[in-house]
Amino acid sequence: MSDRTVIGLEAPYLIFIGDIDSKLYAKTGQSIVDWRPELVKGQLAFGDNKLDLGVPQMSVSDAIATGVKSLIIGVAPVGGKIGDAWIKVLVEAASAGLNIVSGLHFRLTDFPELRDAASMSGATLVDVRVPPKVLPIGNGKKRKGKRLLMVGTDCAVGKKYTALAMTKCLSERGEDATFRATGQTGIMIAGEGIPVDSVIADFVSGAAEQLSPENNENHWDVIEGQGSLFNASYAGVSLSLLHGSQPDGIIVCHDPSRDTVSSCPEANMPTVAECIELNLSCARLTNPQVRCLGVSVNTSAMRKGLREAYLSDLSAELGIPCVDPLVEGCGAIYEQMQVLGLVGGNSCA
Amino acid sequence: MSDRTVIGLEAPYLIFIGDIDSKLYAKTGQSIVDWRPELVKGQLAFGDNKLDLGVPQMSVSDAIATGVKSLIIGVAPVGGKIGDAWIKVLVEAASAGLNIVSGLHFRLTDFPELRDAASMSGATLVDVRVPPKVLPIGNGKKRKGKRLLMVGTDCAVGKKYTALAMTKCLSERGEDATFRATGQTGIMIAGEGIPVDSVIADFVSGAAEQLSPENNENHWDVIEGQGSLFNASYAGVSLSLLHGSQPDGIIVCHDPSRDTVSSCPEANMPTVAECIELNLSCARLTNPQVRCLGVSVNTSAMRKGLREAYLSDLSAELGIPCVDPLVEGCGAIYEQMQVLGLVGGNSCA
Repeated sequence: MSDRTVIGLEAPYLIFIGDIDSKLYAKTGQSIVDWRPELVKGQLAFGDNKLDLGVPQMSVSDAIATGVKSLIIGVAPVGGKIGDAWIKVLVEAASAGLNIVSGLHFRLTDFPELRDAASMSGATLVDVRVPPKVLPIGNGKKRKGKRLLMVGTDCAVGKKYTALAMTKCLSERGEDATFRATGQTGIMIAGEGIPVDSVIADFVSGAAEQLSPENNENHWDVIEGQGSLFNASYAGVSLSLLHGSQPDGIIVCHDPSRDTVSSCPEANMPTVAECIELNLSCARLTNPQVRCLGVSVNTSAMRKGLREAYLSDLSAELGIPCVDPLVEGCGAIYEQMQVLGLVGGNSCA
Repeated sequence: MSDRTVIGLEAPYLIFIGDIDSKLYAKTGQSIVDWRPELVKGQLAFGDNKLDLGVPQMSVSDAIATGVKSLIIGVAPVGGKIGDAWIKVLVEAASAGLNIVSGLHFRLTDFPELRDAASMSGATLVDVRVPPKVLPIGNGKKRKGKRLLMVGTDCAVGKKYTALAMTKCLSERGEDATFRATGQTGIMIAGEGIPVDSVIADFVSGAAEQLSPENNENHWDVIEGQGSLFNASYAGVSLSLLHGSQPDGIIVCHDPSRDTVSSCPEANMPTVAECIELNLSCARLTNPQVRCLGVSVNTSAMRKGLREAYLSDLSAELGIPCVDPLVEGCGAIYEQMQVLGLVGGNSCA
């Protein structure tokens, strides 16, 4: 944990999957293994559970022996409640000194036996949905370093995935890039972050400033977005994140199969062009040089043969690369950044 | 208290001023007396304190005898800390069954003797900076009734004052209007409300929806604004309030003596025209019919003779009435609403 006010996790990890045998309920654990294999020593599944995240099966004592520091709950309990069998193993792990990390709705500290075990061993209980207690008010001051923020036409349109893919793309091409997490799964993948939507409203832009601190001139923070300026339930969170992140570039994430906004079924989805325009207009408050560098489209619901035409039409309309990161990766967006002189050794301040 | 999720206060009030003898530190109490004289039975100043809010001086037992239900702390303690003399009287009042209402930074529940007194008598301790625990997520659905929201070029530019003056102006002309409070002093004046900047970010637009619920077609909610879309510290709060309020009209509040944004000294103030444009553009998400009905200017820092020219030039530029409510009142804005058919018996849905 740095001196910034963010949640920090201690690696390496043991991913707890318990009795959950469905990939669907184990998305968090699988994401951590997929994106940060170097952080994960193993998984802990109960005796007869065959779910395999692709890492070694381990007991708590195996994990301790290999140097694991934190047990991460990598699954969501079916029905939302956690049972005695889970608690028993979590208590065993906490007693042995492993930090316990959860992104679930219940709080680890609500279980007295877990609290006692952690306090005896000195282990930490980390609920990644709970933001740091003290956060500063945002000040809008320009910080050194570069920032790329994911924004969206709605919630749940691939902002986390795109940020992770974009970070990987930049790193593979020799750029200095860091993924910055703003939600619970992202925090487990990054090993640090702030769940910005759980912060008291007045402090959200300050949280975003903590999240992407001053850095080297050519370093890129790639920031996971939240919500959408076009989703009336959560747009305030998105605007605070936009102002606090002071992005040099934004990538708009979009799901063309959606007709109405997720939590506001009476609201139509905006066009990608509208989304770019409003985001740039608001982002200029803290970074007048902001540009839209690309569009990330979830094309999974498109009929075969349609996706290429859709992406190339959109790209022609907007004049920027439009990709599905899951299909063709983010290379085209990187090339756009090269053309603009933002990366590739000749980046300008 | 209605079935809406808002803070509710019980009138009539006794305004506590204790040992504070400066008008500057008694602004809250004075505001309540000025705007809602019908709610205030008296003031409680300590023996030799000559500060007079213009209401009868009363002891706790006098207050009980005249039917007072709540003691409201109407002053800010010099130095920020409250002393034993205050606590003694607050405990006396709570023991006698008076609810204690505070908008100060410390929490009433942090004083065990006060907590005990209230729990014995059944009185309530109300910290108006603490929002209701459970608030819904905003849904953006259109509600019946009309809404007028104060927005600003910055924080602290007269949004509360303008909302109160506008509510009075509407009521005096026979319109059905209710002031809706979003900050601590406003809540004491309204007798209810939600301190929206203290709400968890994800729930702010939902709080705004609770604050101005469905109403009669010709009823106006006049909503106190918070922050500014141009203040990078707090713009997220302002946007959530804008979306949740789904205003039919906005009034832009402005202080022309300010060069830079209050909490962001590196940011220049926007022009009033820019402020109108961005607010309308964002507000259309939940109310496509939104209009800017006027501008409220704090002209107190203007040299004599300049103010009339400033206001008439601004009004000519923008094509809407521009007034200083403290000087000429809000009548011109009401007339604009009449011209648009929004009030005066011929209001359209």
